[in-house]
Amino acid sequence: MSDAKKPDESRRSGRSHQAILKAVVELVGEMGYARLTIEAIAARAGVGKQTIYRWWPHKGALVLDAFAALAGGVAALPDTGDVSVDLKAVLRATVVELCEPRFEVPSRALTAESQMDPVLAKQFVDTLLRPNLEVTKERLRSAQRAGQVARGVDLDVAVELLFGPLFHRWLLRTAPLTREYADTVVDYALAALRPPSPSSGSAG
Amino acid sequence: MSDAKKPDESRRSGRSHQAILKAVVELVGEMGYARLTIEAIAARAGVGKQTIYRWWPHKGALVLDAFAALAGGVAALPDTGDVSVDLKAVLRATVVELCEPRFEVPSRALTAESQMDPVLAKQFVDTLLRPNLEVTKERLRSAQRAGQVARGVDLDVAVELLFGPLFHRWLLRTAPLTREYADTVVDYALAALRPPSPSSGSAG
Repeated sequence: MSDAKKPDESRRSGRSHQAILKAVVELVGEMGYARLTIEAIAARAGVGKQTIYRWWPHKGALVLDAFAALAGGVAALPDTGDVSVDLKAVLRATVVELCEPRFEVPSRALTAESQMDPVLAKQFVDTLLRPNLEVTKERLRSAQRAGQVARGVDLDVAVELLFGPLFHRWLLRTAPLTREYADTVVDYALAALRPPSPSSGSAG
Repeated sequence: MSDAKKPDESRRSGRSHQAILKAVVELVGEMGYARLTIEAIAARAGVGKQTIYRWWPHKGALVLDAFAALAGGVAALPDTGDVSVDLKAVLRATVVELCEPRFEVPSRALTAESQMDPVLAKQFVDTLLRPNLEVTKERLRSAQRAGQVARGVDLDVAVELLFGPLFHRWLLRTAPLTREYADTVVDYALAALRPPSPSSGSAG
């Protein structure tokens, strides 16, 4: 216990950590990723630059941590036994998140920067996006075992069939992004993924 | 005929016009939309600023014209009678275009800028994207009349079910964007959109 932090110091560290992550998300929304500096983050968070460098080696790592904290981590999808209900819950939650200014503004900034910066794009996808796609694939695998999704379905394509139309509408603003749209996308995607109906018309 | 341009002057105008559009696409790819200036375009194209202002009121109108010229205009989809064949031809062509550096670099720049600039985004969608979605909807309408797509399908959702997964993979670089992926997306989307099979199992 001799080298453990004192309670006061630990509490101060926790507060600084949170202040830095909050400052990063705000500033990415305001000025974009490219123009973001460690100086600006330190000033906004009310900490010294050395405090930031103690925890993060560079800006990219810090921004991804800040977005991961904003997104609140990835949980397994619910499994009520009805894959349609579970996917609609997730896609509706995604719609709500994408339309919430606190999340939307910095997310658009990071998406924009990713177009011009393939290294950031790969970290962005690996850290923030792929875990969400993976838990969705896991839920679809469970639906395959339950006979609600065909065995032969390519699950990498299936998850993009679900999330692709959502992001298409969000990124390109082709039309308002609503919960009803999320529900329709799930209905259409599941119609594509369901097992062939038995020739007799009765369940086996 | 008295106020018609002389042939030499008309030829020179045509050359300047093409040089300006080419310069715009190059420069958007190199510096992005936000930092693009009429001065830089004039210098690259070898024309005077007044020549540019004679034809385009502002940068936004010019950039959209340049991208419309790059995309080569929107034609109706082929109608071979087989909607799967026709959609695969279009989605494969989209994949090829999105992966071609001459098109990819400025398109990513414009997509990035659109995230931060809703006015540009709306012009971008209305001028460049929506016409492509509309001709695809028209082909799906013809497939509805032919009984290959269910009558009740929401065609606005259907086109995003086709193009959404393509753009999702391109924008977020979740995996390589290939012709095979385009084919699979069409197969899945059409499985979602097809009419309910007759209960007897034989075509009516």
